[in-house]
Amino acid sequence: MTYELFYWPSIQGRGEFVRLALEEAGAPYVDVAREPGGMKKMMKALEDGGHPAFAPPFLKAGPLTIGQTANILLYLGQHHGLAPQVEEGGLWTHQLQLTIADLVAEAHDTHHPVAGSLYYEDQKPEASRRAADFVANRIPKFLGYFERVLGGRAWLVGGQLTYADLSLFQVVEGLCYAFPRALAGLGDEYPGIAALRERVAARPRIAAYLASPRRLPFSEEGIFRHYPELDP
Amino acid sequence: MTYELFYWPSIQGRGEFVRLALEEAGAPYVDVAREPGGMKKMMKALEDGGHPAFAPPFLKAGPLTIGQTANILLYLGQHHGLAPQVEEGGLWTHQLQLTIADLVAEAHDTHHPVAGSLYYEDQKPEASRRAADFVANRIPKFLGYFERVLGGRAWLVGGQLTYADLSLFQVVEGLCYAFPRALAGLGDEYPGIAALRERVAARPRIAAYLASPRRLPFSEEGIFRHYPELDP
Repeated sequence: MTYELFYWPSIQGRGEFVRLALEEAGAPYVDVAREPGGMKKMMKALEDGGHPAFAPPFLKAGPLTIGQTANILLYLGQHHGLAPQVEEGGLWTHQLQLTIADLVAEAHDTHHPVAGSLYYEDQKPEASRRAADFVANRIPKFLGYFERVLGGRAWLVGGQLTYADLSLFQVVEGLCYAFPRALAGLGDEYPGIAALRERVAARPRIAAYLASPRRLPFSEEGIFRHYPELDP
Repeated sequence: MTYELFYWPSIQGRGEFVRLALEEAGAPYVDVAREPGGMKKMMKALEDGGHPAFAPPFLKAGPLTIGQTANILLYLGQHHGLAPQVEEGGLWTHQLQLTIADLVAEAHDTHHPVAGSLYYEDQKPEASRRAADFVANRIPKFLGYFERVLGGRAWLVGGQLTYADLSLFQVVEGLCYAFPRALAGLGDEYPGIAALRERVAARPRIAAYLASPRRLPFSEEGIFRHYPELDP
């Protein structure tokens, strides 16, 4: 089966968490909206009856259509060995993913604290206040939590890589892109997370993906944006 | 087995989504932090090794500790018939729950657009802008989506109540508390959602719960807050 991933074609965004899982699994997939005519196909699929998604990303897996990033990963985790099969381990992996999702949403809101429908330029004073709190309080709280969960081990859950590790890699990549000054001490303050980041990047399939044109660059259109005034 | 729910003792908050599922299931549970000495027990549990939660709510289910509201509901759904057992229906229910969780987070940020660590009074201008967008754009987008999913049926998923229905009830209750003027036309604009709200409230166990002292009132300490200036 070839999966169909539906996501905005020009940004990493939330779709990237799904792409990383598909790539690590070696699962064949089409990134639909990046194909000719794909955007039209995606907008049509959003209007479908049945199980419509509120927003991209969503994944077509044979007869299933699955929306919400963490839910897609729940599915891929079970079908591709990217999470424990046992209930306890599966729930724990998903709990970590949902906590990462909270961090992602907060990272987005540093540049869009008022409304996603407005430009960043229309909410700069609010963004400045929100980003300052995010850097001072929220990044340390989240990264401190994941460092504690790692507890010196290689992976977040048991002895094997899960989709939560891929997602932690991605959110750290994004934070380092958006807030390079705030994250300059990552390796000293969070050595376990820094090592996990290297470890994920060195996975053969992930390394090949990151070096390929399939990996879109970070940019000021996505979730993680580098605005120097928000990272003073 | 008696569940132990860990959540802040004086607000509905995110814990309420778990309480509603436990009540509908008729599952025995202790609301730990509302018992004598319970807050201390909760703060200690947050520091535990093993599978620590990033924040309340979390649920102890025998040997399992499960955090993140949607993840707790995923578990309860499977163990108490509050979601389909088959993969497709289980994922669809969870997808809807995660979309409700996004709406809940956005409702919270209307009064805390800058930082959860600051008082509302310290972010009123930002709150005013964010709430205006929430009321004008986000509430209609979310409620329009759920109305479309209902499609004239009684419940969101198949022919039976799921935890997603309980959660949609709760978020609509909260929105009507926080934004009574904006939601005044609920029954006209979203008749399916309004009917679902009545249908959930009339479930015998839910009706008994809502009339009991176990149901905390809405207040200006929780997620859904009524500030008249945000609902002009």
